[in-house]
Amino acid sequence: MATGDPKQSILALNAFDPARATALAPELAQLVQRRYRLFGSASVLFYERPLEFVRAQGCWLYDAGGTAYLDAYNNVPSVGHCHPRVVAAAAAQLAQINVHSRYLHAGTLDYAERLLATLPAALANITFTCTGSESNDLALRLAAGYSGATGVIVTEAAYHGNTALTTAVSPSSFLQRCASPHVRLVPAPAAPELFADHVVAAIADLERHGLHLSALLIDSIFSSDGVFADPAGFLQPAVEAVHRAGGVLIADEVQCGFARTGTALWGFERHGLQPDIVTMGKPMGNGYPIGAVVTRADILDALREREGYFNTFAGSPVAAAVGNAVLDVIEQEDLMANAMRVGNYLRQRLRDLATRHAGIGAVRGAGLFIGVDVRSPVSAASLINALRERRVLIGAAGRAGDVLKIRPPLCFSVSDADLLVAALDEALGAQA
Amino acid sequence: MATGDPKQSILALNAFDPARATALAPELAQLVQRRYRLFGSASVLFYERPLEFVRAQGCWLYDAGGTAYLDAYNNVPSVGHCHPRVVAAAAAQLAQINVHSRYLHAGTLDYAERLLATLPAALANITFTCTGSESNDLALRLAAGYSGATGVIVTEAAYHGNTALTTAVSPSSFLQRCASPHVRLVPAPAAPELFADHVVAAIADLERHGLHLSALLIDSIFSSDGVFADPAGFLQPAVEAVHRAGGVLIADEVQCGFARTGTALWGFERHGLQPDIVTMGKPMGNGYPIGAVVTRADILDALREREGYFNTFAGSPVAAAVGNAVLDVIEQEDLMANAMRVGNYLRQRLRDLATRHAGIGAVRGAGLFIGVDVRSPVSAASLINALRERRVLIGAAGRAGDVLKIRPPLCFSVSDADLLVAALDEALGAQA
Repeated sequence: MATGDPKQSILALNAFDPARATALAPELAQLVQRRYRLFGSASVLFYERPLEFVRAQGCWLYDAGGTAYLDAYNNVPSVGHCHPRVVAAAAAQLAQINVHSRYLHAGTLDYAERLLATLPAALANITFTCTGSESNDLALRLAAGYSGATGVIVTEAAYHGNTALTTAVSPSSFLQRCASPHVRLVPAPAAPELFADHVVAAIADLERHGLHLSALLIDSIFSSDGVFADPAGFLQPAVEAVHRAGGVLIADEVQCGFARTGTALWGFERHGLQPDIVTMGKPMGNGYPIGAVVTRADILDALREREGYFNTFAGSPVAAAVGNAVLDVIEQEDLMANAMRVGNYLRQRLRDLATRHAGIGAVRGAGLFIGVDVRSPVSAASLINALRERRVLIGAAGRAGDVLKIRPPLCFSVSDADLLVAALDEALGAQA
Repeated sequence: MATGDPKQSILALNAFDPARATALAPELAQLVQRRYRLFGSASVLFYERPLEFVRAQGCWLYDAGGTAYLDAYNNVPSVGHCHPRVVAAAAAQLAQINVHSRYLHAGTLDYAERLLATLPAALANITFTCTGSESNDLALRLAAGYSGATGVIVTEAAYHGNTALTTAVSPSSFLQRCASPHVRLVPAPAAPELFADHVVAAIADLERHGLHLSALLIDSIFSSDGVFADPAGFLQPAVEAVHRAGGVLIADEVQCGFARTGTALWGFERHGLQPDIVTMGKPMGNGYPIGAVVTRADILDALREREGYFNTFAGSPVAAAVGNAVLDVIEQEDLMANAMRVGNYLRQRLRDLATRHAGIGAVRGAGLFIGVDVRSPVSAASLINALRERRVLIGAAGRAGDVLKIRPPLCFSVSDADLLVAALDEALGAQA
């Protein structure tokens, strides 16, 4: 259960090496150097040749020269970059009123009600936040307050946020640090039938150290671990063990929520789970910062007796208008069905590619969240950069960074999928 | 240095009591009950008769019936509610591109450069966040990474955020919990000449317990403690003691930054301080969720060697466009000078009021951040509700909740100030 000793965090996969700035074209080098001067060591920039985009629409990003790049990476603009309906909702509400939630606002209540209606009835209370990090930070405290315990189980390459509390349970952010004493890391479910055993062992290990289980915190698509989705339902025995041990299940829907997995609005539904806490972020506002924590009243009350919670920007009229517009678009453009249809098609085409290229291994995923194993001597990093040169954007995942992460906006079409596969075919051919 | 045992957190000052919902007019009662059903115990609503607003402009909020309320409370829409320039900047950029910062975007760099130019040269690196909470959470980790210590000193009724780490240093959020072992609380500087002594004593107390100082974390206007601004410069000996002890100064500018105090863009400048870390939030985006942490490269590097940091929504093209527009408005409408001029005028008029009403005591503050002591038998809560009935919005502060907090948008005018004073005069007269 050690984290290993990566020189570079998984967060920085596909990161530009600032030492190579001088090798870039002069104008790009200047922009990159200016950025490192301003942001310092916190700057993480993608690609060997970093990209500057000035415009975006649907699944396409455009650079200053008007060159279009196919976006198969970004899950934040989930219903499509700059979706006109979402932009209009934001613009109209920004001009009308945008104030904190200690005054009443019917739009915020309508949105809260609409979201809660999509979730199990026991999850009756919603707390709005601004980001997935804030959501998971609050969720971990809710779990601790309710369980009276501190132990948290996450997967080995999980990412759950950038606050102090969520970084401690995000091994993908670890560099020289390692997991805190109350955190147990279990392997990603590459062998799903073993996942519950690992969780049971982690609970036993906590108990051996005089600790008790507070929460199993998982993103049910195991996004940064390398994308593990199947078979649907395999998570149930692990969650039963968590509940037997007095812990709660926090379903982190920041990656897999809002229709991405194609069969349901929420990732946990694919597995037939009943989470105790659900957290939301990224795709919720299509780029406007919104998050939420949904839980049972008894879990919320346990924390609220101890400490106050207020979030200034959260649940504002603008946040609600944007969130509502995102749900409208998902429904009206039938994006869940599109995610299923195009996702299935793309996985099949990637599997066909695997029969012709030794560099491509297993293809996994659900809906429009796909992981593709890359095999030596081809590397994921080289493929990602080769695709970038062919104007297709994807990312990397996995502890060893050897998985292609394909996670486009949900309006990705069959012809977009064909473009991606053709570019990948070419890139693999060039590297053979 | 105990926190006392408040039944209600300072965060919930002026909170509506949900048990009284049935006493409200039927339509309002229904809305309030619907809200408590959705938000549960996390819902904090202002006023004995909660307000619903549907529109806002400048310093005015409007309810559904078109009744206007003068806003002397909200510092988030700092350059005025729904400022057309800020709204236009957001709307235009939302329609063009809004994507994460691992691609290059000149607008984000321009904004970063502009902000850094307002700060001491040693503070060379900026990390964008989405909220003040995220900013202070990161700042505390930067301080710990740099100092190698854990001790944090804050004031007795401070508020620095809603994450786990920032809640631990926010006694104004404490209900049944108390300060963590590594946190020391010092009294608010009601007696400013004693502040450094309290800080020195807190450092000594940390050392006695085998701990060392990481940071003094202060909002230099002491917003939730009750607003203590004078004399300018009184914080210097405390900060010298902090540096001698190997700790850093985190200047939390979430409340006092962006020209509010009238003499400078940043609150710490009034005191002639050289902070090691500056954190920003609330007013930075006039309601759009933006925050930032600015620090020295050596402090940033110390954390970045240990762990990765990335913030999905932060520093996006929209965040930068909005932040830039806010700075434009502050400059073009000369809001700093307005804050000074109207703030001075309002304080003078409030002091005049104090000579005629025994219920009003000391009047403190800088620029458009004003605290007014309320004396028995008049209570701050009753005055705040009486002002609400007269369509003027203010808040409460202080450990005992006995300070009026007056903190309007920076475009507050002399005639707005007159309206506020007339309403307060009436309210005091009615309670005499």
